[in-house]
Amino acid sequence: MANPVTQDVREVRVCLLGFGTVVRRFLTMLKDADERIARQSGVRFLISGTTSRHGGFLDPSGMTAGELLGIVHVGCDELPGPAVPAEELISTCAADVIVEATVLQPGGEPASTHINTAFTQGLDVVTVNKGPVAWQFDRLRRSAERNGCRWRYEGTVADGMPVFDLFESCLRSCEIKGFSGILNATTNSILEALGEGRSFDDAVAAAQEEGVAEADPTHDIDGLDAACKVACLANALMGADITPDDVPAESIRGVTAERVMAARESGRRLCVLCSGERSDEGDVHTSVRLAELPLGHPLAGIHGPALGLILHTDLMGDVLTAELDGRVQQTAYAILADLLTLYSRR
Amino acid sequence: MANPVTQDVREVRVCLLGFGTVVRRFLTMLKDADERIARQSGVRFLISGTTSRHGGFLDPSGMTAGELLGIVHVGCDELPGPAVPAEELISTCAADVIVEATVLQPGGEPASTHINTAFTQGLDVVTVNKGPVAWQFDRLRRSAERNGCRWRYEGTVADGMPVFDLFESCLRSCEIKGFSGILNATTNSILEALGEGRSFDDAVAAAQEEGVAEADPTHDIDGLDAACKVACLANALMGADITPDDVPAESIRGVTAERVMAARESGRRLCVLCSGERSDEGDVHTSVRLAELPLGHPLAGIHGPALGLILHTDLMGDVLTAELDGRVQQTAYAILADLLTLYSRR
Repeated sequence: MANPVTQDVREVRVCLLGFGTVVRRFLTMLKDADERIARQSGVRFLISGTTSRHGGFLDPSGMTAGELLGIVHVGCDELPGPAVPAEELISTCAADVIVEATVLQPGGEPASTHINTAFTQGLDVVTVNKGPVAWQFDRLRRSAERNGCRWRYEGTVADGMPVFDLFESCLRSCEIKGFSGILNATTNSILEALGEGRSFDDAVAAAQEEGVAEADPTHDIDGLDAACKVACLANALMGADITPDDVPAESIRGVTAERVMAARESGRRLCVLCSGERSDEGDVHTSVRLAELPLGHPLAGIHGPALGLILHTDLMGDVLTAELDGRVQQTAYAILADLLTLYSRR
Repeated sequence: MANPVTQDVREVRVCLLGFGTVVRRFLTMLKDADERIARQSGVRFLISGTTSRHGGFLDPSGMTAGELLGIVHVGCDELPGPAVPAEELISTCAADVIVEATVLQPGGEPASTHINTAFTQGLDVVTVNKGPVAWQFDRLRRSAERNGCRWRYEGTVADGMPVFDLFESCLRSCEIKGFSGILNATTNSILEALGEGRSFDDAVAAAQEEGVAEADPTHDIDGLDAACKVACLANALMGADITPDDVPAESIRGVTAERVMAARESGRRLCVLCSGERSDEGDVHTSVRLAELPLGHPLAGIHGPALGLILHTDLMGDVLTAELDGRVQQTAYAILADLLTLYSRR
């Protein structure tokens, strides 16, 4: 059957930096939803280049996600060609948009350099790597503006849970006075496992078995991941111009089962609360800290891999957004959501 | 000081049908946020006509919200001129957009006729009256399409809480498989007051004192208001083509304090749950019913005037949206949000 939507569909070429589990899941999602996206949004995404530690792939004319998945092993990040430096790939792959999905590094490099290179060549950027938004937001925002490019970063805070799109599209003209959220699933799961009477090490192991905690959960446990998300929110929603180094972050190392259970017995839940608030002087005060929430609190129902965020606004009061199952699928969706925000024609 | 944004600002003329508390709060909000809206969104809204039971106002050249509020009493719905039939006002006021804010009537009339009249004259429409979306969605959607007009109705379900904008802008390409929510603040507040050991009548009075329940809360107590919202969601998010008459709705009349307290003692919360679900055959099954939620459920933290909704999606899993204080301010914001979705230029 001839494709009834082809005529009206614009092709957009995507270059993927990084080829980890999130990018591979994104490709599977794109393959499955390809026709729906063409029909509903009038756009088809083609992959014109990718790179990982273990190889590269370059096809400036672009191939569909299905075609690309036909020549790689979805289970690993090996690519058919030789590894290409990201800067070189950006210059040669003839893409419309770069997806920055390399691994987070404190300082936000080399991802920020990739993003800036893309802007200087007139390309739009989608990032799920939170480093650039956490550490170099203002510089990159200005670079995008100067070069007439667009920059989306929905996946940097809580996967595809609507945060930045929510602010831009659903809370127009609202000012964000502050925010509070549960934004790290690993610590949330560890605290819940402690509440079952486990030791700290057992609680970490339980969160790993559940697939919530990574093999090395240091950045989560000590609050760096949460501090990055707080910096992203403060920068992008409140114009704060801070980095994660400016966010006081409390580690949950040393929290005991007894402490979690004592909170619960008094009708409260111990959690890692991420917050930001504009002071009367106009500064944004941020923190990542252990806090006890009443069981009836709107964030007290955010468990395990779920994440939730309350935005305190002037015109709409407090608005809560949450994803109830934040996994690889939801992070992969953030890439698709950003691409559709940029290129959807309906 | 000369206004630095005037040059780049488009004027949009708004005709307001209805002049109750929500519309008056909207005008106050518009007056206060006028400069911010012009600066951020490149648009200025002028009022070219309004009508209420007690009078009318017509100025096809339009006046600012501040100017209009200067000639009416914000505390009442009296307008300076004679009452004008809505159909006549739509034809004479030279507006770009009609705001339908008359009172809900079962069947969705005369609001649906107002909306259709606006479409046939090439005007966009914003409605906070849920009748037309609940009873005549498909007919009006097709009329808008046929006439090249746009129709927004964010305020019909849970005030300005992002629902339809969320689906369109933040969950692109997702299919809604179902939804479940707490969408009626009056019953939510009455059930909470029952949990304090009050009688049903006392619980109603308490909700009225809090400003949550209306003077005549019949439609809320017996589930009609919730059934309307369920129909709006099923129609606009799931293509169901139903009316509130198709939604089985349970009344909370007859719920006792003992029942609410018994639920709580077993670690659960009695609430009125609104839900919709697509069956394997493709039909949408809906209901408004008393349900006991575990205290750790994400909706169990929705209290008093708060409202919350979980959208069950295919690509993003379950996404929760909630407003923590749904009052007149939040309904008024829904009008502004819809107008900005239609006319914002940035």
